[in-house]
Amino acid sequence: MRFSLRSVSHCGCRVGTLSCTRAVNDGENKEVETPLCTLYTKKGSAPYLSVDMLKRIEKLPHIANMHLSSLADYTEALNKFQHGVGQFTALQDFLVYISVHDTGIEIPSGYNTKAGTAVWNKAGKKLIEPQQFVKCQEAFRPTFYQALSDSDTDKNSGKKRAMKAVDRTLDFLDTILELHKKSERLRDVGVFGSVEGGFHEEARMRSARETAARNVDGFVIEGFYAQNEKNKQIDVEEIKDLCNKVFKILPEEKPRLMHAVWSPDQVVMALELGIDVFDSCYPWLVTERGGALVFSFQYHNNSENEREARSTDGFEISLKDKSMFEDFGAPVPGCSCYTCQNFTRSYIHHLLNTSELLAPVLLMIHNFHHYFEFFESLRSSLKTDQFLKLKTLILEQRPSQEPPK
Amino acid sequence: MRFSLRSVSHCGCRVGTLSCTRAVNDGENKEVETPLCTLYTKKGSAPYLSVDMLKRIEKLPHIANMHLSSLADYTEALNKFQHGVGQFTALQDFLVYISVHDTGIEIPSGYNTKAGTAVWNKAGKKLIEPQQFVKCQEAFRPTFYQALSDSDTDKNSGKKRAMKAVDRTLDFLDTILELHKKSERLRDVGVFGSVEGGFHEEARMRSARETAARNVDGFVIEGFYAQNEKNKQIDVEEIKDLCNKVFKILPEEKPRLMHAVWSPDQVVMALELGIDVFDSCYPWLVTERGGALVFSFQYHNNSENEREARSTDGFEISLKDKSMFEDFGAPVPGCSCYTCQNFTRSYIHHLLNTSELLAPVLLMIHNFHHYFEFFESLRSSLKTDQFLKLKTLILEQRPSQEPPK
Repeated sequence: MRFSLRSVSHCGCRVGTLSCTRAVNDGENKEVETPLCTLYTKKGSAPYLSVDMLKRIEKLPHIANMHLSSLADYTEALNKFQHGVGQFTALQDFLVYISVHDTGIEIPSGYNTKAGTAVWNKAGKKLIEPQQFVKCQEAFRPTFYQALSDSDTDKNSGKKRAMKAVDRTLDFLDTILELHKKSERLRDVGVFGSVEGGFHEEARMRSARETAARNVDGFVIEGFYAQNEKNKQIDVEEIKDLCNKVFKILPEEKPRLMHAVWSPDQVVMALELGIDVFDSCYPWLVTERGGALVFSFQYHNNSENEREARSTDGFEISLKDKSMFEDFGAPVPGCSCYTCQNFTRSYIHHLLNTSELLAPVLLMIHNFHHYFEFFESLRSSLKTDQFLKLKTLILEQRPSQEPPK
Repeated sequence: MRFSLRSVSHCGCRVGTLSCTRAVNDGENKEVETPLCTLYTKKGSAPYLSVDMLKRIEKLPHIANMHLSSLADYTEALNKFQHGVGQFTALQDFLVYISVHDTGIEIPSGYNTKAGTAVWNKAGKKLIEPQQFVKCQEAFRPTFYQALSDSDTDKNSGKKRAMKAVDRTLDFLDTILELHKKSERLRDVGVFGSVEGGFHEEARMRSARETAARNVDGFVIEGFYAQNEKNKQIDVEEIKDLCNKVFKILPEEKPRLMHAVWSPDQVVMALELGIDVFDSCYPWLVTERGGALVFSFQYHNNSENEREARSTDGFEISLKDKSMFEDFGAPVPGCSCYTCQNFTRSYIHHLLNTSELLAPVLLMIHNFHHYFEFFESLRSSLKTDQFLKLKTLILEQRPSQEPPK
């Protein structure tokens, strides 16, 4: 895979293209524009959505983000299957990025060791060692993957723990790169190295320097959030200074990916830090709490409509709220998604009220649609030099309080 | 609504057409062929499926079966909405039949009174009286509905209880018919009377005679199963003699509907009893236990293939079974449904294994498809006088043991 950095705006936002080769079948080459968000998946599929429903969503990402944690148990079957996890999950039209954890769920903390990293699913804990990790990737055949890492650090981690995370991650990376090089099946597959080090500058700098020195195709900036929390969103303001230092060490021409940067205000701030790739876990989290994304990203409205367009509800509304009982309007009036075109707030309220599983299906469609349109809007604002206008619009809509968890 | 009985075969199967006027909007007239099964819904929608996914299923029924129990709480909102429950749930292309209970779930027994019938949903119990019942229907605006009934009888009910069920149901019916007649909103809406009486001939005969004497558009044959069981399927063999007597009293030119006749062997036997309308709760029940319907209904195969076509697995297979781990075939090889065309048994096993909610989505698509094709096959076998061939094929595939509940 290849990344071309097209421009860096004066506020720090990067615009580029990511050129990837699909590992299986056709070996077709695909070019995607950054900044982008990947498609969040659960067990290899968009949550609640069949492929056909998914394909009706506009501005769909080209890259699906799957997780080692939920697929590891299927290494044996996928190895036999041979056609890779994309085809197995009927997402063969997508590029596939495999990260270690599913950031959207709580991951027990404190189980990583020198030998490997603990991943969790319904069946319990699995300690994955680098050798086994490479075997998994050979079976999955993704487009690129995050190398096994120890990212179990946050604000409260001491320097010693942060250093340990850096050292383990580099150890894993060396083993993985060596095995990767020898593997025929992983020939065209990209490797992203994790930059660790918690909130400790010395550890971070060492991690960045050493990872950058290795033959990786990109970087995952990790270790900034407590993995055992569900709503583990990164506060970009808090990590800004540290990241600015660290990113000077990372080569400009390699992409930077960051998980757990979710709400639109955090995304615009992370863009200014120089992040290229995000995940779309946020629309799923909003769906899980019965919410619909409502924030506006229509930055090129004229001054009259602009005020109207701005959401006064914060970034999302709760369709569980009693006020929705007799609200026969669309979840977001004017939205072109399947849900808003066909269903009323009142009906979705009824579905949520009676715990019917169609509710998250419909909300997932809208929330994905809304979030992907937002990213399209981000890209176009950067191209037309209107990013600050969009940023202002987003920050003005910040909710006065946090949504219920 | 109008029913035309076209023919009755020598084995008792009826073939006809049901002509209905949609109550809301266009007032369009629709003609559907019987025998048919209605579309099973949960809270007004096909379980797990958005309307778009649903519409991709072949041989889709024209009538959606919704339940008073899950919609009663929404009477106020629907009354204000005015356009009826079909439009509220985005199923405006369907005719809507509203039955009292959702037969697919356990309904607590022993709560009906002289004043009304207890319906249950997530919020608990609601005693619906006839006056209120008519208000509900005015808000729902269905194509036809089952009049409020006391159907809480089964094999073990004494004669006194059976008689009480008959009397209460007739009382409700009289009140409902009177209010219905006066209601402008229910002008084109059909009413089905419930024939009750448990397993007691005298009670049954009285119920049939009295209901037939009233101005109803059809009959729901009720009171044959314990409503507090989940898998409450009727054993048609057991009720055959009683029904044969009762059905002689019912006018031939009105349709007969029966709930809880589900598996294909029971359906073919109930057809011979003279039932015209069934529900499609069975595909949902199979989906809930992680199963896929596999029985064959290809009765016009030549003798060579016939043996191949016959399922040796009974009516369904469990995709939860360990044997599916490395089975990369379609759930049902050769099936043209979306699920079988795109996904492997192994992948669905993985989704079930990790409790991912896409699993029931995919299974629901296949199981609906399979069941609706089966009904299409029933209709065509009756038209071409090959019903006995199909019946034999079905009975030969009867499983040696009951599926897990």
